[in-house]
Amino acid sequence: MAEKAVTKKSYTVQEVIDLVLKEGKLDILKETVDTIKAGNPDTVVTGIVTTMFPTISVIKEAARLNANFIIAHEPSFYNHNDSPDWVKNNAVLKEKRQLLEKHKIAVWRFHDYCHALKPDAVNYGLAKKANWLPYFKTGEVMLTIPGTTLQELVAHLKTSLKISHVRIIGDPEQPCERIALLPGAWGGQRQVSTAESEEPDVLIVGESPEWETVEYIRDAGLLGRKIALIVLGHAVSEEPGMEWFTEWFQPKIADVKITHIASKDPFTWL
Amino acid sequence: MAEKAVTKKSYTVQEVIDLVLKEGKLDILKETVDTIKAGNPDTVVTGIVTTMFPTISVIKEAARLNANFIIAHEPSFYNHNDSPDWVKNNAVLKEKRQLLEKHKIAVWRFHDYCHALKPDAVNYGLAKKANWLPYFKTGEVMLTIPGTTLQELVAHLKTSLKISHVRIIGDPEQPCERIALLPGAWGGQRQVSTAESEEPDVLIVGESPEWETVEYIRDAGLLGRKIALIVLGHAVSEEPGMEWFTEWFQPKIADVKITHIASKDPFTWL
Repeated sequence: MAEKAVTKKSYTVQEVIDLVLKEGKLDILKETVDTIKAGNPDTVVTGIVTTMFPTISVIKEAARLNANFIIAHEPSFYNHNDSPDWVKNNAVLKEKRQLLEKHKIAVWRFHDYCHALKPDAVNYGLAKKANWLPYFKTGEVMLTIPGTTLQELVAHLKTSLKISHVRIIGDPEQPCERIALLPGAWGGQRQVSTAESEEPDVLIVGESPEWETVEYIRDAGLLGRKIALIVLGHAVSEEPGMEWFTEWFQPKIADVKITHIASKDPFTWL
Repeated sequence: MAEKAVTKKSYTVQEVIDLVLKEGKLDILKETVDTIKAGNPDTVVTGIVTTMFPTISVIKEAARLNANFIIAHEPSFYNHNDSPDWVKNNAVLKEKRQLLEKHKIAVWRFHDYCHALKPDAVNYGLAKKANWLPYFKTGEVMLTIPGTTLQELVAHLKTSLKISHVRIIGDPEQPCERIALLPGAWGGQRQVSTAESEEPDVLIVGESPEWETVEYIRDAGLLGRKIALIVLGHAVSEEPGMEWFTEWFQPKIADVKITHIASKDPFTWL
């Protein structure tokens, strides 16, 4: 009996990107940070790694897995536009580029398009991981969950998101039901605007400028408002979004293996 | 025997500001955030409070002390320029303003001038509080301290600055001798530039955007560089500067009592 030939479909880096945009029904953005940061659009993809930050660890693990395409939500080179000249003669950046070249790994940032998915993959992924999908509405940052206390909410987030430490502002006994979910680093203006317009019991963020949102929430609490802040950490707050994207995308590109590698919390807490 | 009349010299808010600039030998800045944020320049000062952030607690404590002038290093209204319209219809900001008006308290931001002092009051104050004055040089962010480990350095900072929690990146056993001292929020570009140009063993910052300095330091460490990061927290990292300013200024305005009130760490760490 003759063996049946199995022909796997192959994709270039650009074809993978095009497939994400097509399957996500995403309009092409004229201005976006979602560009190819390393490698070549014509390279045939041997495997895909998804992550939050394409750290040196993530790159080395991708190479070990023989995956030559990293789809990362956040910058590769320590600034929003991945400008190589943001800091002149940046030797760490240079060495990171050399490592990517050595392993012939391409990196595409998937940030603006990721948030443009309906639902926003980051918010949906976080809500899913926290078992809050019954309360999640596409396009809304507000969720009404069954009533709990701030302390219980923090414990739930630490367990469900596998986060070891968080920073909070607020009375641990404060009731929490109306939650504003803003993972990542949306900046103080959007965070404070959401606090003012939505009046949530708690604002859950990835990170926040301390002289903006943090002092606003501290003052709000001191003025007697029942509004708390939970700062999860940037990487860990958005990682569930890249996990969810992986689940969503894998069936659409069955011939290429996608592995999610978490960037993890960069900090040791002392 | 007739009682001798004691005439105390009185100062208006503007006269206090002018005295700081004169005694500090400070050139007038044409562009500065150091403006009067609340109250009137002509108000006669009954007492001065210095602090990092003029929180609701600090304002109430100032009122209790009958001090009607707060000199604060950082913004009053949650954005660098203290624009009231940074977030439209900000009810917390409105209530804070009403509290200041109720107690007739003036607030002056002392940020750009504070850093323009020679030495920069914030860096000097922090070095003083950490017992590092023998290693401190005016105008330099680098200090060479007696060799220690990262872990011991963290313990020393927590004790000397009375900080309960910090976040670090780096091997706790890593030797630390060359320190870059950047309290406050200088931003990723300046923090990473300092790391690249000075190659310190450790960068000590107040706060830092996680997608910038934090990921840079994580990658640098993963590439084998011996560079660590200590994130002290914004308020607690610069508070020693306002303490030092108080010590420096009080003898120059002996007839007005100056009280330093620490803003303290806004977070509960869980």
